[in-house]
Amino acid sequence: MTTSNDVARRAGVSQATVSRVLHDNARVGAEARARVLAAMAELNYVPNAQARAMRLQRTGTIGVVSGKIKTPFFPQLIDAIGSNIADRNLRMVLWNSEENRGEPAALETIRSGLLDGLIFTSARPHSATLHQVAELGIPFVLVNRTVDELECDKVTSDNEAGGRQVAQYFIANGRHQVAIVGSSSDLSTVRARRKGFVDEFTRQGIPLRPEWQTQGDEPYTHDLALEAAVPILAAEDHPDAVFCLGDPNGFGVLDAARRTHRVVPTDVWVVGYDDTEMCSWESFDLSSVRQPVDDMARVAVELLVRRIAEPDAPFIDHRFASNLIVRGSTGNVPLKSTQ
Amino acid sequence: MTTSNDVARRAGVSQATVSRVLHDNARVGAEARARVLAAMAELNYVPNAQARAMRLQRTGTIGVVSGKIKTPFFPQLIDAIGSNIADRNLRMVLWNSEENRGEPAALETIRSGLLDGLIFTSARPHSATLHQVAELGIPFVLVNRTVDELECDKVTSDNEAGGRQVAQYFIANGRHQVAIVGSSSDLSTVRARRKGFVDEFTRQGIPLRPEWQTQGDEPYTHDLALEAAVPILAAEDHPDAVFCLGDPNGFGVLDAARRTHRVVPTDVWVVGYDDTEMCSWESFDLSSVRQPVDDMARVAVELLVRRIAEPDAPFIDHRFASNLIVRGSTGNVPLKSTQ
Repeated sequence: MTTSNDVARRAGVSQATVSRVLHDNARVGAEARARVLAAMAELNYVPNAQARAMRLQRTGTIGVVSGKIKTPFFPQLIDAIGSNIADRNLRMVLWNSEENRGEPAALETIRSGLLDGLIFTSARPHSATLHQVAELGIPFVLVNRTVDELECDKVTSDNEAGGRQVAQYFIANGRHQVAIVGSSSDLSTVRARRKGFVDEFTRQGIPLRPEWQTQGDEPYTHDLALEAAVPILAAEDHPDAVFCLGDPNGFGVLDAARRTHRVVPTDVWVVGYDDTEMCSWESFDLSSVRQPVDDMARVAVELLVRRIAEPDAPFIDHRFASNLIVRGSTGNVPLKSTQ
Repeated sequence: MTTSNDVARRAGVSQATVSRVLHDNARVGAEARARVLAAMAELNYVPNAQARAMRLQRTGTIGVVSGKIKTPFFPQLIDAIGSNIADRNLRMVLWNSEENRGEPAALETIRSGLLDGLIFTSARPHSATLHQVAELGIPFVLVNRTVDELECDKVTSDNEAGGRQVAQYFIANGRHQVAIVGSSSDLSTVRARRKGFVDEFTRQGIPLRPEWQTQGDEPYTHDLALEAAVPILAAEDHPDAVFCLGDPNGFGVLDAARRTHRVVPTDVWVVGYDDTEMCSWESFDLSSVRQPVDDMARVAVELLVRRIAEPDAPFIDHRFASNLIVRGSTGNVPLKSTQ
């Protein structure tokens, strides 16, 4: 492999001069600098990145902790974050948070000096690691899921407004017998969606049946949603609409309707959340609240890059609007302006 | 952050002694070593990993180039590779190959000294980067897709046998009017699946209709498969079985059947490939050939770790068996032993 020595010899300068050029040291004449850069190009010289990182205190690498990557949502988010990182000629180190070892591993790695900053996509409250990251002054951004009491840069979409919009849509169309199929309430996203939905029913004085408000410990799986929805839909007295707090839940409820011979949308409306790609497939044709994943990823990377450059910049809480996309699972009934 | 200086002060030794302990230098007395290690533990000292990597010439980091991560297959493979890497206390740096910039970026990064080895999951033949990686003697493994002419460690499942098994299953059950919905033939996986299927029909003397052998440039999308299948299934003279070279193609063909009012499995059987999680959902209930993804990931990481430790070990071509999983899209008709 080419060394800085080889570059010095080819350029006819000392190795110290090559080193100064690499350090952007001003004490190198323009002509010498040009010769060194030309020699580097000719020799296809790649400066040792470890050595460069030690000098600059920058690694060019961003750590990203993904939520469960085998779901439909997180690959879309990770794909978009990865593109934004690559566009800036940075690298992404990825952890899967599924077994709760992603966050501690990311913390250990950045403490070892191998990363410039961290992006967490699946924060849980009471995460000791996240609080430690904040206390240590490590540059990081929370995107998608956040933790209220942490002071840091955050990028979300308005999940509470999304839940409210679904409630208004159901109510305006006379669907008042509603179920919620969702997951663990300690996730900020799920909690806000549920709150927006429930508060709107309360505000409009329409009671919700407690036995139809399901809640699982595990987030977002098709199979858990199916199991939860089958007894509810099978009963003679069943809901006329189901709000699912994630798309996999929505797909599970569609399967539950199939199994219990309830016709969607005639007997029951179904709405999901995230508007992942499969919602538009004819097998599902699932109405769903869209999160602007590409925009969220772009801003998360922007904020992290800013935070790395300006550690003391004020924190930004960037919240995008969310937007219900109407499809066949709610009879393609258009949104009205309801308030 | 704690420095080796702090450790030296706490242990009552010189910084050079701390450095010798970190370097596993034998010229440190047992007692001094114990004092240094105790001080490190007390101070929660993390040696700078960049500095350690430069000494040891090991980074503890593996680069992985994923195929399109927004498909159902690659997240399952990446998830399994990531778990195996984490189990060994190594880190994963991930690139998405979608825009063909993953492989060159991975090569540049390992040449900069930041990685110990590479895993490619979506190799294409004629990839200049892969040939360069091989020529430079960089430790790497191909998993899932491979390149015939590259001499390296390879982990696959037997895609040709998988295609042959589907052909035998169709033929044994009188489904002789078959279509193939698949993607680019320059992918090793897709090419082998198609070859196994076509060769078996040829061997049994059953002609295939050329106009039903579709082929797209882009791999594995639902929408391209849907578009290709609709005119074929809509025609009065339509196939009685469709072999899809990937699961997303299978989901697209199921949607095409729905749109053209063909009943699955009565009018047409559909088989996918990879047996991704969604195949078992009732919305699809898609028969599919299973690749043993977890085993493939485990062996790929094992082979790479071996290759890093023993650069001159003989190359291994590890091919797992594949296995057709029967579901409702082929009427749950069990496999017979056919030859």
